[in-house]
Amino acid sequence: MAMTAEQILAAITPAARDEPDSGIVRAAMYGFTVPGVIPLWAGEGSTPTPEAFARPAAEALLRGETFYTWQRGIPELREALAAYHRRSFGRGFSHENFFVTSGGMQAIQTIVQMVSGAGDEIVIPTPAWPNYAATLRILGQRPVEVPMQFANGRWTLDLDRLFDAVTPRTRAIAINSPSNPVGWTASREELVAIRDFCRRHGLWILADEVYCRFFYGDQGETRAPSFLDICEDEEQLLLANTFSKNWAMTGWRVGWLQAPRALGPAIERIIQVNTSGTPAFLQKGCVAALDHGDEYLAGQVRMARELRDLTVSMLSGLPGVRFEVPKGAFYLFFSIEGMTDPAATVRRLIDEAKVGFAPGDTFGPGGEGSLRMCYLKDRAQLEEALGRFSRWMVTNHRA
Amino acid sequence: MAMTAEQILAAITPAARDEPDSGIVRAAMYGFTVPGVIPLWAGEGSTPTPEAFARPAAEALLRGETFYTWQRGIPELREALAAYHRRSFGRGFSHENFFVTSGGMQAIQTIVQMVSGAGDEIVIPTPAWPNYAATLRILGQRPVEVPMQFANGRWTLDLDRLFDAVTPRTRAIAINSPSNPVGWTASREELVAIRDFCRRHGLWILADEVYCRFFYGDQGETRAPSFLDICEDEEQLLLANTFSKNWAMTGWRVGWLQAPRALGPAIERIIQVNTSGTPAFLQKGCVAALDHGDEYLAGQVRMARELRDLTVSMLSGLPGVRFEVPKGAFYLFFSIEGMTDPAATVRRLIDEAKVGFAPGDTFGPGGEGSLRMCYLKDRAQLEEALGRFSRWMVTNHRA
Repeated sequence: MAMTAEQILAAITPAARDEPDSGIVRAAMYGFTVPGVIPLWAGEGSTPTPEAFARPAAEALLRGETFYTWQRGIPELREALAAYHRRSFGRGFSHENFFVTSGGMQAIQTIVQMVSGAGDEIVIPTPAWPNYAATLRILGQRPVEVPMQFANGRWTLDLDRLFDAVTPRTRAIAINSPSNPVGWTASREELVAIRDFCRRHGLWILADEVYCRFFYGDQGETRAPSFLDICEDEEQLLLANTFSKNWAMTGWRVGWLQAPRALGPAIERIIQVNTSGTPAFLQKGCVAALDHGDEYLAGQVRMARELRDLTVSMLSGLPGVRFEVPKGAFYLFFSIEGMTDPAATVRRLIDEAKVGFAPGDTFGPGGEGSLRMCYLKDRAQLEEALGRFSRWMVTNHRA
Repeated sequence: MAMTAEQILAAITPAARDEPDSGIVRAAMYGFTVPGVIPLWAGEGSTPTPEAFARPAAEALLRGETFYTWQRGIPELREALAAYHRRSFGRGFSHENFFVTSGGMQAIQTIVQMVSGAGDEIVIPTPAWPNYAATLRILGQRPVEVPMQFANGRWTLDLDRLFDAVTPRTRAIAINSPSNPVGWTASREELVAIRDFCRRHGLWILADEVYCRFFYGDQGETRAPSFLDICEDEEQLLLANTFSKNWAMTGWRVGWLQAPRALGPAIERIIQVNTSGTPAFLQKGCVAALDHGDEYLAGQVRMARELRDLTVSMLSGLPGVRFEVPKGAFYLFFSIEGMTDPAATVRRLIDEAKVGFAPGDTFGPGGEGSLRMCYLKDRAQLEEALGRFSRWMVTNHRA
């Protein structure tokens, strides 16, 4: 009575079956099999979590803090989140608006399960992290992708086009600023325009400001413009965030959701049926990251800016390669003239140059002729990787 | 422009807004505010994770294993899962059928997202863990609850009634055996009948065998009958499981999903958009639990049986209290004659007797006049709690 693979696949939902793999994951899975590749496909640095953040978690685990915990997160961490935001934004925040999640992705999943149902739409500017569209499709919802424009060496989001994509089924507009993958960063004026449009139409803002602190302004800013500068705590704004990027904690899978306090019970219920909470002992490490991690974070951002400049200088002379110097996040998203199959190019680069990028088309409309690389890496390793890529391009690119 | 709570709640989906809180969570949240209460509401023991399982995780964390990891789980843990199943079931298992999830609940969530869509139905015998129905409702799906019968001091599941509940929209039958909350345990013959029905109708079996090892048979059995005894690895069987109960790891939030290998890519994609994987360093502790935890688990089951017997002997004389001696899991589910509002009784017991139960009606049809308690607790504390409850019943129950 064993079934064939085809029979089994025919028995799951079309959405789960037909969803393509993330091109990032596919590049990584291929690259893992080839020795000596320098991986720049994923959005993480090359240094592990500092011991100052890891030790309190390890100690809490060994102390036996191993029971079920608050579905919203431990009070101590929610208070530390409020204090971190007070420092970063120079205004008051209450712990009541913070909810701990098992990673930034789980914060997005919680938002989608809360505000949007089957057949509903969420509008997403692209190129965008592919997980947005995948989440919606797997849940039977519809991502409405609005491509940004790359012209005159700059990425821009046409707000009229964004707003025109809204239909009666639209529940939210997702804004990721600074953006993964292109580094586009909304100005305060753009954020105000989006806020006002969403207010007028009763739409949710799904704000992904994960890279808010990785912003390379010219005025000594320590963060990008944010919806938190211009919105009320109690309106239709939901922010997904994570400890992963700021404090080198990608493998911890802890994030947070910022939401109107009236949604507390609904968020708790959704957390209960998704993960039933986030390990309390891990949250102790997150408290340490917030309370004692400001200097570490500032150093990471400084380093990211230097690595961005290194990357830009090493790639800007290459024939056929075009990009905008990213204003934020820690990726370079660049097009290669004449490249028609980014996934094939990614595989060739892994095999022939031993350097690992992510294919641009996995980020949706607007990313077709491009590749993405994460430059938040050890400097020597990054230089080596960029050198390998440059030599490969000079040898192989027929422009 | 701040919105009222009512306005904000009106803007989320009706399913997310109107879902009731879990009665278990509500009891716990109320009980946490009353000093001196002995909590028996949740499904966890009172001892923390043994150091032998915690230390390898703490060490991996401090060693810097803090990066993104395999979406299916680390190869070492999937291999350890296959070996554990070989020992438990006396037949071959492949690591290819195991997928690590962020808790047993996330395994269920993954299954539901994979096999069932909006408007689809999953049939669930009740009383059942309330998270099943809640998950489905929040995702816009429909739980079809089929009450078990309590008659002549026994819980039974009428298979004809179960099968009659299947409609063209049904995607799966969920079977939790041994069951939380009543301890009902399917016989091998019942499992075969369910398997054959599902095979004939192309339905998925969603098997929750989390309490498989907590089985109190008369023949020296070390586990309950299982779908793994009678099914192929490659058919429409999906099992959700967890490290929580067997190895005292509730707060770790690590579980696993057992599935046909053809579903690997679909499961990886769903994991990616839900949690993006489970911390690799925690998985090292789970490997230790599997490889070195057999004796600990056997001790836990022995203790659970003794505590069950203690509970049964202390409650069996109480007027108006009725239950079946549970065959498995570690709960006692008992009705109280004349009780019409279990949540109110739970609150009174917390306030007046300082003992914390969960209200039976939260487990769905069939649980209305009952309470649930977890007896896997420190023996002296359990005796004290049962003594408090007995005295309260003698004083307060008008039967």
